[in-house]
Amino acid sequence: MAKRLIPSLNRVLIEKIVPPSKTSAGILLPESSSKLNSGKVIAVGPGARDINGNLVPVCVKEGDTVLLPEYGGTSVKLGEKEFHLFRDEDILGTLHG
Amino acid sequence: MAKRLIPSLNRVLIEKIVPPSKTSAGILLPESSSKLNSGKVIAVGPGARDINGNLVPVCVKEGDTVLLPEYGGTSVKLGEKEFHLFRDEDILGTLHG
Amino acid sequence: MAKRLIPSLNRVLIEKIVPPSKTSAGILLPESSSKLNSGKVIAVGPGARDINGNLVPVCVKEGDTVLLPEYGGTSVKLGEKEFHLFRDEDILGTLHG
Amino acid sequence: MAKRLIPSLNRVLIEKIVPPSKTSAGILLPESSSKLNSGKVIAVGPGARDINGNLVPVCVKEGDTVLLPEYGGTSVKLGEKEFHLFRDEDILGTLHG
Amino acid sequence: MAKRLIPSLNRVLIEKIVPPSKTSAGILLPESSSKLNSGKVIAVGPGARDINGNLVPVCVKEGDTVLLPEYGGTSVKLGEKEFHLFRDEDILGTLHG
Amino acid sequence: MAKRLIPSLNRVLIEKIVPPSKTSAGILLPESSSKLNSGKVIAVGPGARDINGNLVPVCVKEGDTVLLPEYGGTSVKLGEKEFHLFRDEDILGTLHG
Amino acid sequence: MAKRLIPSLNRVLIEKIVPPSKTSAGILLPESSSKLNSGKVIAVGPGARDINGNLVPVCVKEGDTVLLPEYGGTSVKLGEKEFHLFRDEDILGTLHG
Repeated sequence: MAKRLIPSLNRVLIEKIVPPSKTSAGILLPESSSKLNSGKVIAVGPGARDINGNLVPVCVKEGDTVLLPEYGGTSVKLGEKEFHLFRDEDILGTLHG
Repeated sequence: MAKRLIPSLNRVLIEKIVPPSKTSAGILLPESSSKLNSGKVIAVGPGARDINGNLVPVCVKEGDTVLLPEYGGTSVKLGEKEFHLFRDEDILGTLHG
Repeated sequence: MAKRLIPSLNRVLIEKIVPPSKTSAGILLPESSSKLNSGKVIAVGPGARDINGNLVPVCVKEGDTVLLPEYGGTSVKLGEKEFHLFRDEDILGTLHG
Repeated sequence: MAKRLIPSLNRVLIEKIVPPSKTSAGILLPESSSKLNSGKVIAVGPGARDINGNLVPVCVKEGDTVLLPEYGGTSVKLGEKEFHLFRDEDILGTLHG
Repeated sequence: MAKRLIPSLNRVLIEKIVPPSKTSAGILLPESSSKLNSGKVIAVGPGARDINGNLVPVCVKEGDTVLLPEYGGTSVKLGEKEFHLFRDEDILGTLHG
Repeated sequence: MAKRLIPSLNRVLIEKIVPPSKTSAGILLPESSSKLNSGKVIAVGPGARDINGNLVPVCVKEGDTVLLPEYGGTSVKLGEKEFHLFRDEDILGTLHG
Repeated sequence: MAKRLIPSLNRVLIEKIVPPSKTSAGILLPESSSKLNSGKVIAVGPGARDINGNLVPVCVKEGDTVLLPEYGGTSVKLGEKEFHLFRDEDILGTLHG
């Protein structure tokens, strides 16, 4: 059984969303149209401490869909699935709609 | 339907203003005359924390026209539209008139 | 009509003073004599925050004549005029007399 | 008799877990399937001080199974056994299940 | 008439002291004997702010004779005279006697 | 008579332990078996100040046996003996048993 | 008459001790035996400010014999004598006996 990872500090575990290459009707989508580097938040760390030792919680939460930077992140294989670990401050924002 | 992005921390989502190459009367404008690197603020993040953990709000607001630095910013495609994400402190100022 | 720029944070908008190449009587001035890299303050930002989030006002004010460093500054064209944006802490001092 | 090490500050002493190359039934596991860079926490330091001098405890504890970054860590040989020292903030998270 | 410069922040305006190449009796001084890189303080800035926004005054004052580092400083020509601007913390000390 | 050194700030004076190349019974030890980079604490400094000026004491004390990093440290010859100066935060931990 | 230097901030004026090349009985000392990079404290600055603006006094005092790092320090010639300026935190410790 794949292990479960609880990220440390302000790290966020994300499963990248692979954009569909065809529409639901099976029509091939142009390569560039849907290349949004996004993912779903699987787990978040407890947050990091500011310089006065106060715990600063992570800005995103489990289930959020987030926009990811083009580079960065650490890939982590848990069982057969691939995930990525990002620092909270590197996540560009949350996607809605 | 294109997704809506809420930027994280002190990031600002901007739609660049493409300067008109002709006057309203159709006369070609010299290349250099109107090349102001500016854009419109579409959405702003909640702000970043200072080292004591206090939330420092973003200086610009939705609808502002802002002057952008020549370099930097992350390009983001939402649906068919291209936007750019800048950090609040990298925006040079607001344009008026 | 040229746009008006309100600089952000502790940025200062400056119009460089082009030193006269001739005296009022029309005599050519030696190249080196008057090459003071100075300018007039057109607009100032609201100031930057120190690490505790307090707003630290800009040290110079509109109308001041200031001494500029040899390098640095961002050039900005507003309408037909060229200006430069400097950070408050990069301005070397104010010129009097 | 091998010496016992109490790590200093926020250092963590870890014994790496060598993933099994065969299943319990003796079947050779594909090279990539189980290559999780993980280890068991053997000992933790007292924690590091934040800039105000307060002691910030380490986030992991003895017995935890942790996910390690691909690089970094200091290898330490105590008697015949090899261990690795990591800084608390470099540990990616704790593994469960 | 040469302009007067009030340095900004913790900058210090200094007029370098050119060591005499001959004694008062006209005897040529050996090149190395008097090569003390020193100068006179002409004007000082109001001081810089520490990270809590408090103004930290400059350590030297007008009229002080100071020892200067071998490198650094910004040269400033005011009228026919050459001056140098140093940051307060780069001045090595005050010379007496 | 060799001079006595009181280290400054959070520096620690250490005498490196040269691992025995033979067992007490005179049998040659394999090169790698005992190569623990360790040493004995001879003297410690008063500690360093955190950014608020509070004195943060050194974590190790005279007589401790400590694990040293592979690199770093300043070698100091006092009389005929060689010692090494390390910063407190570079010491990996204390060895016991 | 040579000038007197009062160091600024946490700088320390030191006169290096040139180790004797012969014993008092005139016997040539081996090159390495006495090469302790040390010096006598001639004058100290008032101290530097921590980030809250509090003055942190220098750790050494006039007359102390100190151990100096192999590199660093600014050489200063006052009259015919050569001195060296070090920052307080670069001094390795005080020598006694």
